[in-house]
Amino acid sequence: MQETLQYIEQNKQRFVDELFQLLRIPSISADLAYKKDLLECAELCAEFLKQADVENVEICETPGNPIVYADKFISADLPTVLVYGHYDVQPPDPLELWTKPPFEPYIEKTENHPDGAIFARGSADDKGQFFMHVKALEAMLKTGNLPCNVKIILEGEEEVGSKNLGDWVKQNTEKLKCDCILISDTHIYSNEQPTVTTGLRGLSYVEVEVEGPNRDLHSGLYGGAVPNPIHVLSRMIAGLIDDQGHITIDGFYDNVDTISTEERAEMNKLKDDPEVFKNSIGLNGVEGEHGYTTLERTSIRPTLDVNGIWGGYTGEGAKTVIPSKAFAKISMRLVPYQTPEEITEKFTKYFEKIAPSNVKIKVTPHHGGMPYVLPSETNEFVAAKQAMETAFGKEVLPYRSGGSIPITAMFEEILGAKSVLMGFGLDSDAIHSPNEHYGLFNFYKGIESIPLFFENYAKMKK
Amino acid sequence: MQETLQYIEQNKQRFVDELFQLLRIPSISADLAYKKDLLECAELCAEFLKQADVENVEICETPGNPIVYADKFISADLPTVLVYGHYDVQPPDPLELWTKPPFEPYIEKTENHPDGAIFARGSADDKGQFFMHVKALEAMLKTGNLPCNVKIILEGEEEVGSKNLGDWVKQNTEKLKCDCILISDTHIYSNEQPTVTTGLRGLSYVEVEVEGPNRDLHSGLYGGAVPNPIHVLSRMIAGLIDDQGHITIDGFYDNVDTISTEERAEMNKLKDDPEVFKNSIGLNGVEGEHGYTTLERTSIRPTLDVNGIWGGYTGEGAKTVIPSKAFAKISMRLVPYQTPEEITEKFTKYFEKIAPSNVKIKVTPHHGGMPYVLPSETNEFVAAKQAMETAFGKEVLPYRSGGSIPITAMFEEILGAKSVLMGFGLDSDAIHSPNEHYGLFNFYKGIESIPLFFENYAKMKK
Repeated sequence: MQETLQYIEQNKQRFVDELFQLLRIPSISADLAYKKDLLECAELCAEFLKQADVENVEICETPGNPIVYADKFISADLPTVLVYGHYDVQPPDPLELWTKPPFEPYIEKTENHPDGAIFARGSADDKGQFFMHVKALEAMLKTGNLPCNVKIILEGEEEVGSKNLGDWVKQNTEKLKCDCILISDTHIYSNEQPTVTTGLRGLSYVEVEVEGPNRDLHSGLYGGAVPNPIHVLSRMIAGLIDDQGHITIDGFYDNVDTISTEERAEMNKLKDDPEVFKNSIGLNGVEGEHGYTTLERTSIRPTLDVNGIWGGYTGEGAKTVIPSKAFAKISMRLVPYQTPEEITEKFTKYFEKIAPSNVKIKVTPHHGGMPYVLPSETNEFVAAKQAMETAFGKEVLPYRSGGSIPITAMFEEILGAKSVLMGFGLDSDAIHSPNEHYGLFNFYKGIESIPLFFENYAKMKK
Repeated sequence: MQETLQYIEQNKQRFVDELFQLLRIPSISADLAYKKDLLECAELCAEFLKQADVENVEICETPGNPIVYADKFISADLPTVLVYGHYDVQPPDPLELWTKPPFEPYIEKTENHPDGAIFARGSADDKGQFFMHVKALEAMLKTGNLPCNVKIILEGEEEVGSKNLGDWVKQNTEKLKCDCILISDTHIYSNEQPTVTTGLRGLSYVEVEVEGPNRDLHSGLYGGAVPNPIHVLSRMIAGLIDDQGHITIDGFYDNVDTISTEERAEMNKLKDDPEVFKNSIGLNGVEGEHGYTTLERTSIRPTLDVNGIWGGYTGEGAKTVIPSKAFAKISMRLVPYQTPEEITEKFTKYFEKIAPSNVKIKVTPHHGGMPYVLPSETNEFVAAKQAMETAFGKEVLPYRSGGSIPITAMFEEILGAKSVLMGFGLDSDAIHSPNEHYGLFNFYKGIESIPLFFENYAKMKK
């Protein structure tokens, strides 16, 4: 192990330089215009895996973007860890809010990252995080210290709902057989209080359309006498959450996991300083479901957010139009034991129910994902906790995150294995936002923690 | 007069061909990218005025788009009519809803226009309508039958609030001195029931911005715990109109002209067939202020409409973002004796008042316009009514329109002259919408009515 950590220490700068190569590729999966860049990114991932001495490197075709696969078999007596990551990234818009172009990485210090952070789209989500595994594998293999069998898959469609991953995993269950799945695509509570993510929320994402008149109308001639679809959509959105912050959709909370007062008290030991939270995002007040803390609102409670809205004239100057249609993208975060199918259906029914009779409504489901929980008594959790405690020199706590990684539930269903969510980002890293970044400290701590996890896990599984 | 009408009859086809030249120029004033096209359009207008034998043709510079001026003086004993029109047009978007490109005019029959209609952006608003004056002047001048002195101004910024017209008129009061102003930029009730517009609504147009967090956030990590500006904006918009269709802005109705029951009864003789109205725009139900008919809602009552809304991710696919900001364009139609300054101020105060304390609000006024009324006992109204009765062979009624032509109030204030709103479009001509068109029947009836108006007006003023 000492040799491995030494190898890491000696090659730190090169690891960052190589990561920059990955970050320069605009692998935006939400926009078909970047198809070529996704292929280029997959090829570069494969290249880095070969350089790391991982074997059987393959670029596997799917109906969408390819999946990069590689493995290294040591012995049938050792457990097998399947590493998962994704090389696709979120769209970078609004571009004008980036300090520098999103695909030209650079390093700069921040308040939370006094050692410097790498700024670029995908730096934290997820290129910078899966690349820690590639480099940790390189360090273990080059120093002859890989204590488990390992398989790695890197997909290119995570940001658009991993449409093709499920089918591909089903077709390759033998190839992907493993004891656990290791994923770094989450964040820790803070650099002072490292955590292992033990829960993730699920997702239901829909697009809605409200149609009023069958064509755009002049607001002077028709205004005040016809249903304006923007007004109607605004009223409907306003009606989805009541003044107590509860979601009004019929039956929305039916299957929500009830968490005991004790468990909630334990969870709230991770104390959010409301001032720090508010200041970090420039707010003078938070809001949300009554009766819950900010920490609970973003982890154990389901939520509903409008992620986009558009309709009518949005260009320069003024246009006096009543548009025919208005649109919104709406997503709901789910908790155990809600399912995306259930919630999408309940949303659709309710949205149709509250629509006035003089407009037409269309609800199109985008993608969904199941919520996920990793109990803290499992070997997987304990191996990760201890690895990070060694690397950070601090106690590591379990943490429920508000984000969604729908594939964890899929892996459990198809491969029968639990996922360990050992991510190293910070909440403030601006993933999915302009000026996304990833701390150098976090990048290096991740690379150190991974070999320690492999070592712990190999021992426990003996 | 007979010779003039004959001249019109003999040159009908050429008039349409010439109008097509104007319609091919994308003179979109809301978008600076079309600056060159506006100049080209002004030059073509000047060219047509010269060909019509109108004199002193000038392209007058302004800080924005130029104003085309021309005149023809006959005798100090005759009244002077100032003709106003505008050569700029609304933006054509959404482009995908046009059957053919918006600046490639063509003729096609419609239900309301069995003789055919000219389809193109600006065909009815206002190129096709001001061009009737150019052609009527040509017919009167070429046949030696102009019964009044005439001045004509064509501006290029009507669709963006005539920003520079007021100053230019103030600087040229002597040059523009006149007895009345004649404008064709409105519509008639129907081809079977021609009308002269006796009232127009005013306008207050604002852009609003709601800022929540100071950057875009991941909806999984922050959703449910922070104010989402799209939700907040939706709630605020929903709150601007109550469930009785009344606008909730404090003091909004304070100065609204009260109209007697008798006057309302007279007005409602222009019977709207609700089925025809609804079918024409594909609705199965109308809505609006309780206690008023559709006709009243679109003419004697002030209204509020959202003309555009945007925020968050509006591209292809799904992005789980909470945007930092959301925006809307909101316009209010005003009636006598509301003023745009008063209403913009009341809107701004109210919008700030209803905003939750954890968001920042910005209200930017775009442009405004005063409401306008032309009493039916004036010479101007009578001359127009009689001219159209001769041309159409039908009784002509007074009509209050819901649209705004803010310059009518400005002309009255600066030049001390009343405007006659003798427009010939139909409500269904889709102005400001895709597939805008203007009936050939209406175009020709307009060209015939104008010389008759000049004749009537000259007699009355003797």
